Amino acid sequence: MSEAGRSETELDGVTLLGNQNTTYRDDYAPEVLETFVNKHQDRDYMVTFECPEFTTLCPKTGQPDFGTIYINYIPNVRMVESKSLKLYLFSFRNHGDFHEDVVNIIMDDLVRLMEPRYIEVFGKFRPRGGISILPFANWANPEFGYGDLVTRRQFEQLGGHE
Amino acid sequence: MSEAGRSETELDGVTLLGNQNTTYRDDYAPEVLETFVNKHQDRDYMVTFECPEFTTLCPKTGQPDFGTIYINYIPNVRMVESKSLKLYLFSFRNHGDFHEDVVNIIMDDLVRLMEPRYIEVFGKFRPRGGISILPFANWANPEFGYGDLVTRRQFEQLGGHE
Amino acid sequence: MSEAGRSETELDGVTLLGNQNTTYRDDYAPEVLETFVNKHQDRDYMVTFECPEFTTLCPKTGQPDFGTIYINYIPNVRMVESKSLKLYLFSFRNHGDFHEDVVNIIMDDLVRLMEPRYIEVFGKFRPRGGISILPFANWANPEFGYGDLVTRRQFEQLGGHE
Amino acid sequence: MSEAGRSETELDGVTLLGNQNTTYRDDYAPEVLETFVNKHQDRDYMVTFECPEFTTLCPKTGQPDFGTIYINYIPNVRMVESKSLKLYLFSFRNHGDFHEDVVNIIMDDLVRLMEPRYIEVFGKFRPRGGISILPFANWANPEFGYGDLVTRRQFEQLGGHE
Amino acid sequence: MSEAGRSETELDGVTLLGNQNTTYRDDYAPEVLETFVNKHQDRDYMVTFECPEFTTLCPKTGQPDFGTIYINYIPNVRMVESKSLKLYLFSFRNHGDFHEDVVNIIMDDLVRLMEPRYIEVFGKFRPRGGISILPFANWANPEFGYGDLVTRRQFEQLGGHE
Amino acid sequence: MSEAGRSETELDGVTLLGNQNTTYRDDYAPEVLETFVNKHQDRDYMVTFECPEFTTLCPKTGQPDFGTIYINYIPNVRMVESKSLKLYLFSFRNHGDFHEDVVNIIMDDLVRLMEPRYIEVFGKFRPRGGISILPFANWANPEFGYGDLVTRRQFEQLGGHE
Amino acid sequence: MSEAGRSETELDGVTLLGNQNTTYRDDYAPEVLETFVNKHQDRDYMVTFECPEFTTLCPKTGQPDFGTIYINYIPNVRMVESKSLKLYLFSFRNHGDFHEDVVNIIMDDLVRLMEPRYIEVFGKFRPRGGISILPFANWANPEFGYGDLVTRRQFEQLGGHE
Amino acid sequence: MSEAGRSETELDGVTLLGNQNTTYRDDYAPEVLETFVNKHQDRDYMVTFECPEFTTLCPKTGQPDFGTIYINYIPNVRMVESKSLKLYLFSFRNHGDFHEDVVNIIMDDLVRLMEPRYIEVFGKFRPRGGISILPFANWANPEFGYGDLVTRRQFEQLGGHE
Amino acid sequence: MSEAGRSETELDGVTLLGNQNTTYRDDYAPEVLETFVNKHQDRDYMVTFECPEFTTLCPKTGQPDFGTIYINYIPNVRMVESKSLKLYLFSFRNHGDFHEDVVNIIMDDLVRLMEPRYIEVFGKFRPRGGISILPFANWANPEFGYGDLVTRRQFEQLGGHE
Amino acid sequence: MSEAGRSETELDGVTLLGNQNTTYRDDYAPEVLETFVNKHQDRDYMVTFECPEFTTLCPKTGQPDFGTIYINYIPNVRMVESKSLKLYLFSFRNHGDFHEDVVNIIMDDLVRLMEPRYIEVFGKFRPRGGISILPFANWANPEFGYGDLVTRRQFEQLGGHE
Ligand SMILES: [Ca+2]
Ligand SMILES: [Ca+2]
Ligand SMILES: [Ca+2]
Ligand SMILES: [Ca+2]
Ligand SMILES: [Ca+2]
Ligand SMILES: [Ca+2]
Ligand SMILES: [Ca+2]
Ligand SMILES: [Ca+2]
Ligand SMILES: [Ca+2]
Ligand SMILES: [Ca+2]
Ligand SMILES: [Ca+2]
Ligand SMILES: [Ca+2]
Ligand SMILES: [Ca+2]
Ligand SMILES: [Ca+2]
Ligand SMILES: [Ca+2]
Ligand SMILES: [Ca+2]
Repeated sequence: MSEAGRSETELDGVTLLGNQNTTYRDDYAPEVLETFVNKHQDRDYMVTFECPEFTTLCPKTGQPDFGTIYINYIPNVRMVESKSLKLYLFSFRNHGDFHEDVVNIIMDDLVRLMEPRYIEVFGKFRPRGGISILPFANWANPEFGYGDLVTRRQFEQLGGHE
Repeated sequence: MSEAGRSETELDGVTLLGNQNTTYRDDYAPEVLETFVNKHQDRDYMVTFECPEFTTLCPKTGQPDFGTIYINYIPNVRMVESKSLKLYLFSFRNHGDFHEDVVNIIMDDLVRLMEPRYIEVFGKFRPRGGISILPFANWANPEFGYGDLVTRRQFEQLGGHE
Repeated sequence: MSEAGRSETELDGVTLLGNQNTTYRDDYAPEVLETFVNKHQDRDYMVTFECPEFTTLCPKTGQPDFGTIYINYIPNVRMVESKSLKLYLFSFRNHGDFHEDVVNIIMDDLVRLMEPRYIEVFGKFRPRGGISILPFANWANPEFGYGDLVTRRQFEQLGGHE
Repeated sequence: MSEAGRSETELDGVTLLGNQNTTYRDDYAPEVLETFVNKHQDRDYMVTFECPEFTTLCPKTGQPDFGTIYINYIPNVRMVESKSLKLYLFSFRNHGDFHEDVVNIIMDDLVRLMEPRYIEVFGKFRPRGGISILPFANWANPEFGYGDLVTRRQFEQLGGHE
Repeated sequence: MSEAGRSETELDGVTLLGNQNTTYRDDYAPEVLETFVNKHQDRDYMVTFECPEFTTLCPKTGQPDFGTIYINYIPNVRMVESKSLKLYLFSFRNHGDFHEDVVNIIMDDLVRLMEPRYIEVFGKFRPRGGISILPFANWANPEFGYGDLVTRRQFEQLGGHE
Repeated sequence: MSEAGRSETELDGVTLLGNQNTTYRDDYAPEVLETFVNKHQDRDYMVTFECPEFTTLCPKTGQPDFGTIYINYIPNVRMVESKSLKLYLFSFRNHGDFHEDVVNIIMDDLVRLMEPRYIEVFGKFRPRGGISILPFANWANPEFGYGDLVTRRQFEQLGGHE
Repeated sequence: MSEAGRSETELDGVTLLGNQNTTYRDDYAPEVLETFVNKHQDRDYMVTFECPEFTTLCPKTGQPDFGTIYINYIPNVRMVESKSLKLYLFSFRNHGDFHEDVVNIIMDDLVRLMEPRYIEVFGKFRPRGGISILPFANWANPEFGYGDLVTRRQFEQLGGHE
Repeated sequence: MSEAGRSETELDGVTLLGNQNTTYRDDYAPEVLETFVNKHQDRDYMVTFECPEFTTLCPKTGQPDFGTIYINYIPNVRMVESKSLKLYLFSFRNHGDFHEDVVNIIMDDLVRLMEPRYIEVFGKFRPRGGISILPFANWANPEFGYGDLVTRRQFEQLGGHE
Repeated sequence: MSEAGRSETELDGVTLLGNQNTTYRDDYAPEVLETFVNKHQDRDYMVTFECPEFTTLCPKTGQPDFGTIYINYIPNVRMVESKSLKLYLFSFRNHGDFHEDVVNIIMDDLVRLMEPRYIEVFGKFRPRGGISILPFANWANPEFGYGDLVTRRQFEQLGGHE
Repeated sequence: MSEAGRSETELDGVTLLGNQNTTYRDDYAPEVLETFVNKHQDRDYMVTFECPEFTTLCPKTGQPDFGTIYINYIPNVRMVESKSLKLYLFSFRNHGDFHEDVVNIIMDDLVRLMEPRYIEVFGKFRPRGGISILPFANWANPEFGYGDLVTRRQFEQLGGHE
């Protein structure tokens, strides 16, 4: 097979990727998140996840909601493995919460997991009653110099009109 | 049903969501707006509403106008509930005003309701006589540090040409 | 009819809107422009006009040119009424000038009319000989603090490449 | 002014176009529809109207619905005047009906008005509860040879997937 | 409120629309489907549903799948009510089946419910392993003349390449 | 210069192309149309013109209208030269007529000019009062076998919905 | 877990789906293709695969080519399982052939595997030297009535110009 | 290197592909066209070329024209090799001809080269003087059964309006 | 004809616009560039040219390359006339150079011609071997205050990802 | 042939461009990268490469991944030649690594090769398990003044939401 860029040791702790017997939890399970080590810690760089297959429930009516979750972060020591991220997002499937809360919860869980240098989470939900809600939250690790960028990025992500 | 993220207490004051006997006021009714408490007040974050189903009347000719209202805000203690926002926007249905005034009125009403940390309202109206009008207004709560961003955002929302 | 947001008095001077006997001047007629009073003078906010139905003539060959005129401005005391703006733009129909001049002339006329706090005019003309010309001009009222934004906005409107 | 293609006589019965004192009825008023004579009756040709500014109410909940109405028809002796069509569509503004019924009603009213050679009406409504409804109805005047095309067009309007 | 196009009697059997206490079944529940009577049975016309919020599970691995369901049908005596359709589609949420089977099942359930004159169901699923599956099934009621169109439409829905 | 595919003789009658002293008539002037000979008369083939720079006036109000004219035709002996077509379309600039009439007039003028084997003209006008009008007319030369395609093409040009 | 629509027996022969130890062959390996039984053999219906992750090599220069493979087919008794299809397409990764040959080979292999009622394969390859090649091949099983559609579909897939 | 699908013998006559010393003729040189043998002659299938990098000159003014050439054909015994096609199209670079003639010439040259079972050529040229010309020509080999499709395809390629 | 905005004197030196006997040089001819005087020298404003019809040759292989040239500049005393710009760009038609060099050469020639206050040139070339090259160069006249913007604009033109 | 902008000397070291016997290495081969000299070293300017034909393997499962690599850099003395860049990217074809590592490796190799003044690499990978990963890394040469732009650009490349 292929000439591997990551050794087996470097993949330690990655148990879900390529695992046949994956269990899909649907009861809000942040404990399924797994990480691998960042091999480029001497450098600050940005990683984006686009997750268009997110669904949750309305906390009051129980009706299903759908949206896309975008995550941008600057890794520190540990990085979230994408299959475990998928299982984590799946665990909101039968969970009920407001869109504004969901985005904050996902960010808090990823902060706890990775303690990244910087992170932001954006949720682009489909319309309900003709209105779409799109919350955006971000966080800067106080040990790194991104404090000034928290406010700036909240505005820049809004973009300009077409 | 679902594992609820918000308790009943946390939904206090939210009377319209999931309510079967909703009355649709069509006479400009800011009093229909309802709020719920912000559970993440320790953090500044941005919430966007896209409302493509807005219609009002021309104050001089009475002819109907259509547009999309975009609202971006940083919540403080209270947050506007989206079904009540829908009813509020519906209440412009038989109201007559210039596009430039409508956008300022919506923003003033939301400021009064929520006293957010920052808010902006953008109206993208369909053309009349071959011309589209797109007003943008914003406001920064003097108790928070967004004063410098008011002017900046008025220009950034204009974007660049394609 | 509708619950009017603007009283008759507040529409004083608006003679063209809803007027049946509109005369369409086609000989460059800045005098057709009309204004109404800005009801939100305590606030700086942005108003955009998109005018995709603009046509003029080549000053040397007389051949017709077509383009879209975009106007962004921050109102001061008076605001241009959109039907009179339409008639004004129509008055270029049989007028001959370079695209670069047309954009500057429109801006000068609107400055004279409204003395806004800030204004910019962008012309997106269709190609001639395989080349499109897109001029952009802007102006800041010296009585307001937008002087620093004149240069900045000339560059930001260029956007980034796709 | 312009070299007119239609004489005053040929515009007989067209009372709303250019009329300053237009009354906007909002109570389902098919009687506002006006026609002008088809000057090309020796030829069968197709006319399309795109009406993206249509709104009505849900017959059970009273909540507003929005959509685009498309009308394609082959004129016979009389043709619907577009400003009166606008006023007619406006009269659904406070009327409550299912989307499937609205499309049939609009078509029936236009058949009664014009007795065209062929007509079809398509409604593209915005989503409710995550589902969009798009009804399509058509009719062929038995005095002309379009009977075979009724079924054919019901299927062709569906198009292919992207 | 609005001038209703449908009387209470004509809405008999529609219990879910506007109902506050909706229960969201997530265990494949075709029994939640409700209908209302077709008021235009003298005419054949087409109704389209676009349902971009569909999710189900892989029958072998349990992993979630997402897609859009499109339904086109010519109504006979009864028509499916759209809120009940939403609840029915929701009942696939925790159900496991191949995409090809899901599309056939949905069509069979709607045939049983409505016995329409013609119906087709198309599923546009998001990629798995870099491949998207898009099944299309259709059915013609033998009592109506659409038998010849079954094959024809299977090919026409494929469209042409861009 | 280039190795010319057309000899001078083959360009006989083409006086406007490359001519510096072009006069732009703005009073409906079908007499400006010029033709060149079809070098491939042994073959039936289709030629399309897309003309997005068309403007005319409303016959009742005098207000300007804008649209795109599409022309598809199968040439016979003579073919319309494109610069003369441009001048012809320009001659509608100060002419007043309904959209439905304009499309028929353009087609009649081109039939008279070229007597093509088949021709169709489609006008896609920008919205007025929120409604766009798009007329389509076509004609088959009785000396060629396209009679059956006149009706067929009127329907096929409508396309399917997206 | 989920309420399974397919029993274990109905998944007999499906060994790759959900299998952790998948081997990725890169030497043209039609033998990796697997099938499952069609549960709806009493009905003709269409299944589409979109495979945007296809790469092969130029047979003369060895340089890599990229494209999207589209497969449309009407199943008979056996249906191709999508993970095995992915592995099969992967096996072209280091194989060299002309685009026109690749499309024919894929179709032949799928005909041999499934003996479907009808099948077509379309390859949309990225440009080389400024030119893109897009081959389309199809086949009708002589035991079913699709013979007449082979030619028809070769032309319909070409679509119309934008 | 790769497992080759075409043997050296099967590439006989293909001299330009991968050849370092390619000469770029710019004087209309149909003689540069090369072919390879069709390995699937027992089957009729369609091959499409998209060539967005085509340029030629105006025969009267010498000014450059740009466009995209689309070629669709059903191969017979010989197939055009794509690098030689590129060189052939390049040879129009300094050649002067009307768009309508260029499309006919390209088709005639490819008919002479390949004697395909069916072929069509479409040219989508960029606008001159605000007008785009898009000619389409096609040809059916009398030895194969595509005669009826020549007219049909001339109309179908026109498509429907958006 | 039209009421001219530019007098004959103001068009002094503009010899190519509307000139019938234009010679198209194809041997890199910066000397064809012409200018006219800037009538708004008291104001800094931006002018954009979009030139999608640019073609040149590879300096090593002689094969043709195609791209779009974008030019943005703030005029000083003289402004480039667009028809002469077209002839200048045409003169690269048979010239061979790397994309990175072409963009620098065009900018240098325009700097020499106009000595503008600021200028930037961007080339968006079509892919070769699956890779597109897009060079961007800019220059600030030291007599004006745009020095700080050179670096800033090099980064801003990159934009953000979609 | 063409009037060459680069002399043979200036192309020294460019051995792959136009070379017939190119060997395609598929085992991660940074040694294939070649450079040419920057002729505009007195100026800082930006060069962008878009590479939509990138494929690699998953380090754990061996399954193929696909993506687009974007490279933006400000050249110093040496510039990477695009055909050698293509061969280098090809050498990842059978290499296994995480997306986040691949982007860092490509950037490190280009830094070593060119020691540019500034460089950034962005990878836009297609979804796996419904999630897309898009890493972005950048580097500023300490000998030039771009240190402050490293962080800024990491955020600006994220763009705003649509
Ligand atoms: Ca839990
Ligand atoms: Ca924009
Ligand atoms: Ca009120
Ligand atoms: Ca005047
Ligand atoms: Ca961009
Ligand atoms: Ca009534
Ligand atoms: Ca399609
Ligand atoms: Ca059940
Ligand atoms: Ca006349
Ligand atoms: Ca093998
Ligand atoms: Ca020759
Ligand atoms: Ca089309
Ligand atoms: Ca369409
Ligand atoms: Ca020279
Ligand atoms: Ca974006
Ligand atoms: Ca190696």
